[in-house]
Amino acid sequence: MDLTALRTAHPDHWNKAAAIRTLTLDAIHAANSGHSGMPMGMADVATVLYEKHLKFDAAAPNWPDRDRFILSAGHGSMLLYSLLYLTGYPEMTLEQIKNFRQWGAITAGHPEYGHAPGIETTTGPLGQGIATAVGFAMAEELQRARYGKKVVDHYTYVIAGDGCLMEGISQEAIAFAGRQQLGRLIVFWDNNNITIDGTVDLADRTDQIARFRASGWHVQDIDGHDPEAIDAAIEKAKATRKPSMIACKTHIALGSSAQDTSKGHGALTDPQLISDAKAAYGWTAPAFVIPDDIKAQWEAIGQRGAVERANWNVRFASLSERKQAEFTRAYDREVPKKLSATIRALKKQITETAPKLATRASSEKVLEVVNPLMVETVGGSADLTGSNNTKTADLGIFMPENRKGRYVHWGIREHGMAAAMNGMALHGGVRPYGGTFMAFTDYARPAMRLAALMRIPTVFVMTHDSIGLGEDGPTHQPVEHLAISRATPNTYVFRPADTVETAEAWEIALSAKETPSVLSLTRQGVPTLRLDHKINNLTAQGAYVLADATGKREAILIATGSEVSIAMAARDLLQAEGIGTRVVSMPCMELFAEQDEAYRRKVLPAGPVRVGVEAAVRAGGWDRWLLGERGREAKADFVGMEGFGASAPANVLYEKFGITAEATAAKVKALLGK
Amino acid sequence: MDLTALRTAHPDHWNKAAAIRTLTLDAIHAANSGHSGMPMGMADVATVLYEKHLKFDAAAPNWPDRDRFILSAGHGSMLLYSLLYLTGYPEMTLEQIKNFRQWGAITAGHPEYGHAPGIETTTGPLGQGIATAVGFAMAEELQRARYGKKVVDHYTYVIAGDGCLMEGISQEAIAFAGRQQLGRLIVFWDNNNITIDGTVDLADRTDQIARFRASGWHVQDIDGHDPEAIDAAIEKAKATRKPSMIACKTHIALGSSAQDTSKGHGALTDPQLISDAKAAYGWTAPAFVIPDDIKAQWEAIGQRGAVERANWNVRFASLSERKQAEFTRAYDREVPKKLSATIRALKKQITETAPKLATRASSEKVLEVVNPLMVETVGGSADLTGSNNTKTADLGIFMPENRKGRYVHWGIREHGMAAAMNGMALHGGVRPYGGTFMAFTDYARPAMRLAALMRIPTVFVMTHDSIGLGEDGPTHQPVEHLAISRATPNTYVFRPADTVETAEAWEIALSAKETPSVLSLTRQGVPTLRLDHKINNLTAQGAYVLADATGKREAILIATGSEVSIAMAARDLLQAEGIGTRVVSMPCMELFAEQDEAYRRKVLPAGPVRVGVEAAVRAGGWDRWLLGERGREAKADFVGMEGFGASAPANVLYEKFGITAEATAAKVKALLGK
Repeated sequence: MDLTALRTAHPDHWNKAAAIRTLTLDAIHAANSGHSGMPMGMADVATVLYEKHLKFDAAAPNWPDRDRFILSAGHGSMLLYSLLYLTGYPEMTLEQIKNFRQWGAITAGHPEYGHAPGIETTTGPLGQGIATAVGFAMAEELQRARYGKKVVDHYTYVIAGDGCLMEGISQEAIAFAGRQQLGRLIVFWDNNNITIDGTVDLADRTDQIARFRASGWHVQDIDGHDPEAIDAAIEKAKATRKPSMIACKTHIALGSSAQDTSKGHGALTDPQLISDAKAAYGWTAPAFVIPDDIKAQWEAIGQRGAVERANWNVRFASLSERKQAEFTRAYDREVPKKLSATIRALKKQITETAPKLATRASSEKVLEVVNPLMVETVGGSADLTGSNNTKTADLGIFMPENRKGRYVHWGIREHGMAAAMNGMALHGGVRPYGGTFMAFTDYARPAMRLAALMRIPTVFVMTHDSIGLGEDGPTHQPVEHLAISRATPNTYVFRPADTVETAEAWEIALSAKETPSVLSLTRQGVPTLRLDHKINNLTAQGAYVLADATGKREAILIATGSEVSIAMAARDLLQAEGIGTRVVSMPCMELFAEQDEAYRRKVLPAGPVRVGVEAAVRAGGWDRWLLGERGREAKADFVGMEGFGASAPANVLYEKFGITAEATAAKVKALLGK
Repeated sequence: MDLTALRTAHPDHWNKAAAIRTLTLDAIHAANSGHSGMPMGMADVATVLYEKHLKFDAAAPNWPDRDRFILSAGHGSMLLYSLLYLTGYPEMTLEQIKNFRQWGAITAGHPEYGHAPGIETTTGPLGQGIATAVGFAMAEELQRARYGKKVVDHYTYVIAGDGCLMEGISQEAIAFAGRQQLGRLIVFWDNNNITIDGTVDLADRTDQIARFRASGWHVQDIDGHDPEAIDAAIEKAKATRKPSMIACKTHIALGSSAQDTSKGHGALTDPQLISDAKAAYGWTAPAFVIPDDIKAQWEAIGQRGAVERANWNVRFASLSERKQAEFTRAYDREVPKKLSATIRALKKQITETAPKLATRASSEKVLEVVNPLMVETVGGSADLTGSNNTKTADLGIFMPENRKGRYVHWGIREHGMAAAMNGMALHGGVRPYGGTFMAFTDYARPAMRLAALMRIPTVFVMTHDSIGLGEDGPTHQPVEHLAISRATPNTYVFRPADTVETAEAWEIALSAKETPSVLSLTRQGVPTLRLDHKINNLTAQGAYVLADATGKREAILIATGSEVSIAMAARDLLQAEGIGTRVVSMPCMELFAEQDEAYRRKVLPAGPVRVGVEAAVRAGGWDRWLLGERGREAKADFVGMEGFGASAPANVLYEKFGITAEATAAKVKALLGK
């Protein structure tokens, strides 16, 4: 491709874009790894976006009313790092660019949320960015409806590649955004026709324009190297009330000998290739050097938003003090002061009435008192509202006609829901939770992992959490899903035993600032076990003694959720035979692990035999508590599932799979040799 | 809706369809749970399909050249069970229908593969059926190309609901099937506009017809209650070379007071509603009774294929004996007799040359000798061919122009790939394996779980299996994914240490008839550790002593994959200090668990301290082997990951995260108090 025409038509634009391209080449050469082609191909789009449209102030990267830019094609991370460096984000120094992909650098292989301001979300697993962006756009709508356009008035921009659009999650995002008419969402598709294996045509011939249009999007098709066309397309996209997709025909690895090839997708490190490409760009500066005039132009772009931000500050100050405080509190992920007292009052009421309730119904009871208090919560379900018990009367339905609605009908889209919830949490100001059946954790997994990695407090309400689901059978009965979430770092997995623990779990989940929560909730009714009202949140300790042994302590039963009442019944059987038995309820293994050694030792003293009870596989983190981390603590056994479930009424399944008080007592006695 | 016109226009058809509807109502009434609306809505489509088109013989349900029928909307299981009972599949007795959703019945809440012939795949998790069907259609194409149209000439029919089409996996399936022009795939969309939460419109306004068309499908839009329209549409669909979608406008829970409502989606158990609906159908027979004439018509349908099958047998017999034997062997999931010798020869060669290779490269070496021998293998990758090392020179690319091609470019579609591989395995005659990065196990999870549940031997080639991946960073570095697959019942997770173990793992994976395998393979090079050639497959024992202690055995190091060489180096350090150290390589925990107690005890005798070494979380099944299942076996510790990884060169990461020989030796010494 002859670049001369491009260079001469828009020389200022060209040089700014060339700065991105050369920084990319230099950083990847230094790292000897990375993805050169995408930043080289999309530099023109990014330059026009940042220069003419993106509302931001590099000096105040967390300004709440900034536009969000999401690099869904996260492997092209050098595009983003270049932009942040060039526009003058203080953290993104040249040193960081030079240390691309090295230990300790904020310039990781893929953009990692939390590494530096300006990285709005972690991307890399393809399709996540575009689906997460849906949540950003929703949060903007919700906030705008609540606080007014004068303080909330921004766009969410996405660059997505062919990989993003092939991943199924993109369809969930596209269809949902279309239905919801998320007009502030603007997606640039890097239409370069290249994937790792070859041309896109190897695996796909989808007419992406027709596909987006079928879901109600505004679609344009442009030359992604023509700055005027890019500018005009963004103008049109901003004007429409529909979400917008701009198909940008680009050349991957533009201007290099690897242009338009799969090789160009990866790391271009050959010195000759690099110097030839730079020559084609008319670039003469040494590696990592941006000529002063070009850097100055970029820095001016980085400062462009300062005035607008100052004006915004004035407008924000015109909000009522109450509104300002609420806005700020929600952005800071602070719960209302009253939350704790509200939870306590509910706990007290429950200990007095001791209802038998499914913990999913308990969860609804909690939400009924929480949602009116926490105006920032946004609930939803992947088409299982009545089963997940996620909707409370006050929320209203989020719709184009009702942007104040705080309940989302996500459709049958667990993955898209989870990613969009992440987006809401990342945007700030709202606090998302959403439900599905626990077995379908599988569908939401990639986004749940990202929540943990990004350290954001998304709440996943996973009901029907065992064979207690009954007749729907093994496809719907989780057995390994507690294990999956517990094996994931930085994730709280709550399996509350009754309404009191459910309320405590919600309090922790909503108060968490950097940890997502999985609430594992039953379909079937369970009795209230916490009959003494305690002001303290016992669930926050992870595990505690629910009932101690009478007489000599010979056995400790450790159980979670619906199996705690089974452990209590087993204790009755054992005590009747004179076997002193403690029952430990363990609603959150991760929090128990965070307690000090003394407390853990107090709850689980060495000596007595231990039996764990959970209608799931033992691999779900049990051995640490049964055997002791370094071993030799106790003789132990486990009552749970060894394989998949079956289709039958729940009580039959518990009996057939041997998760009963009798089986538990028998295992204790076997360990004791009685 | 007035049913009279429908009844009178096609009375014979009507009564056959009514038999499905009334059996559905009766079974769900008896079970007091289930999903009535879908079978009632789609009974007309199913009746026409079975009566006029579906090639099958109820007396020989496993006839290889039958058409396949896949109920992707698996909650409507009574549709399928009714069809199987009515057409006379021997296993599907009236007793089974009466025991719908009860313990021990083959009539589970959702169709479970293996419960009864005629259930081609397990469905229920939405979207899986349509994506699995893609694999069925591919297997048909592959087999037809190899054995000729005279013995392989069938269609794959799918009923999919709105839920299936909202799930992202459907897009992966649709786009891939369109690209591949799978003309034998015919999907009926049950277009009833109802989901659990309400009308589809709550969450989706996608023009599904435009969406399918955008991916190259042949699309028709019909009245799903008009038998003539249904028949004509199927004729057209069979004639086109494109995959076909027939949008069937239907009324959910047709003819009941719950018609066209969300309530109609679920279990209709109200006696009055049931009797009113039956009256509307003109149905007077008692519950579970099908009048003889109607049953006879259905049974004739079930026998319709007998002649065709007899003719097929003649045609099959005309194949060469070699071809017949090969065809049958592959259907029986038998490996060629030569496989074992071939693997042995490779092992011998490797022990002699002792290469340093990434295990993904070792895997390619194995495939290079296996693929020419096993003509039924079908490889592929989700756009990471060069990274997953899944392609060998002899395979050819599967394309519309080359149906003999045995390598599939799946595109960036891990989930669709996994489901379609399941479909190929279920269809029979082919043996699928496919690759992606191990971290993206997450994307493929729902289908991987189904492989385990269905007991089919799909092989998942998961490369880049730890922080050894390096610079791509934590989004691409699995830490919990070994734990996830190991927690899943009926799954072999192989983490081979070198080329020899990789060859052994492949031999087991390809020989397995009822267990899927996950091959966890390194990006980075590892040394050959098995330097003595053993004829036996040591990996089949799950774990074995790779190097025993010299002198008194004080410590046992247990390691997998890339960490076995670290354990060996740690042993050198410890032995140098006089600490007798055994190294156990544990390439497959599941197979080790299957060994008898005596062998396990021999490999892991009680007494010596134990340290596990794996660049992953300890929750990945370790404690059972470190601590002993009942505890008190050994003092133990673990060298691995406690959180997510980071972006840096692999050797730096191993050092920074403390997964080194020095750290391992230090933990041993700490346990020994030295």
